[in-house]
Amino acid sequence: MTVKQLSLPELTAACARLGVTRVGLWREPVGAYGVEKAARLVAGAGLTVTSLCRGGFLTAAEPGARLRALDDNRSAIDEAAALGTETLVLVSGGLPPGSRDLSAARERIADALHVLAPHAAERGVRLAIEPLHPMYAADRCVVSTLAQALELAERFPAPRVGVVVDTYHVWWDDTAPAAVTRAGAAGRIHAFQVADWTTPLPRGVLTGRGQLGDGAVELRRWRERVDAAGYRGPIEAELFNDGLWARDGAEVLAETVRRFIEHVL
Amino acid sequence: MTVKQLSLPELTAACARLGVTRVGLWREPVGAYGVEKAARLVAGAGLTVTSLCRGGFLTAAEPGARLRALDDNRSAIDEAAALGTETLVLVSGGLPPGSRDLSAARERIADALHVLAPHAAERGVRLAIEPLHPMYAADRCVVSTLAQALELAERFPAPRVGVVVDTYHVWWDDTAPAAVTRAGAAGRIHAFQVADWTTPLPRGVLTGRGQLGDGAVELRRWRERVDAAGYRGPIEAELFNDGLWARDGAEVLAETVRRFIEHVL
Repeated sequence: MTVKQLSLPELTAACARLGVTRVGLWREPVGAYGVEKAARLVAGAGLTVTSLCRGGFLTAAEPGARLRALDDNRSAIDEAAALGTETLVLVSGGLPPGSRDLSAARERIADALHVLAPHAAERGVRLAIEPLHPMYAADRCVVSTLAQALELAERFPAPRVGVVVDTYHVWWDDTAPAAVTRAGAAGRIHAFQVADWTTPLPRGVLTGRGQLGDGAVELRRWRERVDAAGYRGPIEAELFNDGLWARDGAEVLAETVRRFIEHVL
Repeated sequence: MTVKQLSLPELTAACARLGVTRVGLWREPVGAYGVEKAARLVAGAGLTVTSLCRGGFLTAAEPGARLRALDDNRSAIDEAAALGTETLVLVSGGLPPGSRDLSAARERIADALHVLAPHAAERGVRLAIEPLHPMYAADRCVVSTLAQALELAERFPAPRVGVVVDTYHVWWDDTAPAAVTRAGAAGRIHAFQVADWTTPLPRGVLTGRGQLGDGAVELRRWRERVDAAGYRGPIEAELFNDGLWARDGAEVLAETVRRFIEHVL
């Protein structure tokens, strides 16, 4: 998604040229290209898929919407398995229309996970709950902190349901380091993503994630925290940024690799 | 600030017509009008001042900037006393230029409070630390949760340093209700402000606070929580909203009174 201006073949070629061997994919471009075809393309380029983004949106109260969300998540689990990744990232969803009840919405996520976790287990896929920054609590994700995500995940076996640590979403939170430690000790950090925090935020606050090193986040310190918690998995750079999307994708990918080495490693 | 399009004389007249007997003021319009003159105007209209916004911006590391901030806060304390309000709201400040160290910035706030609290006590003014939504952590306020604000306040006597509960900033936080209870029990809720959360957020995220009832916040439930914590002070409606500022100020004030009765009381 950092270089969504690249087609999947362009992306895999650019990764190969840069020596990038692992890539996180999103459902929409994979679906448009064809899941099986994408799996062959990625494997043929010597790449493995770190995670698939995203399932979730599990907060609907209306029965029809709820069933549709569960069906869509079963598809997402199947797609993750087809791509050979063990991790499906879940963005939980915001408040349903007309509701202001955050805690009821959070409980509906737990109910949905009870339905989905067995299907994920059958496919060898882990569900990774991503807390999103509190500025998304109303319209995108009622799970706003790592502690909340972990509290949901802990109702399930660690190999089945865990959390995503994304620096963009948790960097401000002084309780997040302890949650990282707790999640790591339990083997529940299923993904680790990095992005920087830059201001001013754009209208809608979706497309202003900063290039690594451009913002306020102590990226290396967070990477060290996640390391210290025992995480040994991939680190994904996930930058939604209008400015980066407007540039040459291969150049942005190369820049991101340089920034990653300079500011994260 | 909800009706900043009104001059101070227009504001006091509109309050008198609507039966509003208490008003929260901001330093900039008061300073432009003249502090003593504003105090006479407000008292002459039968109004009392609930709080003065705002002191703070206490995170500077550079010695000169730090001294200037302390001087400015001493002035703010004096202005609050002159207006006859006992509460000065503090917006703590963001990361200083070139720094990414949130915890060091938070400690500099505590250091500054040690300097300012005695001056406030002499003037009969309480310092009220306002946690701002985490989306402001980098550039405006490194105190992002009620728990963090309370942790700072608790280093001082309750009559001197407390917190502001503002629904716009804390509504998403599942740990905030317990912090409200703890703050109330200690007599540390020094101000209570209401605004609603609406989306999409505008660029810069400063001027999109929703009119009461238009958004995602369980306003009455928060008012009941603050009541249950023992708070008996005023409730301030603080709406920074480009749409409201573009309308007739007296009409917006009347609407806000109606919305307050309907959604908060």
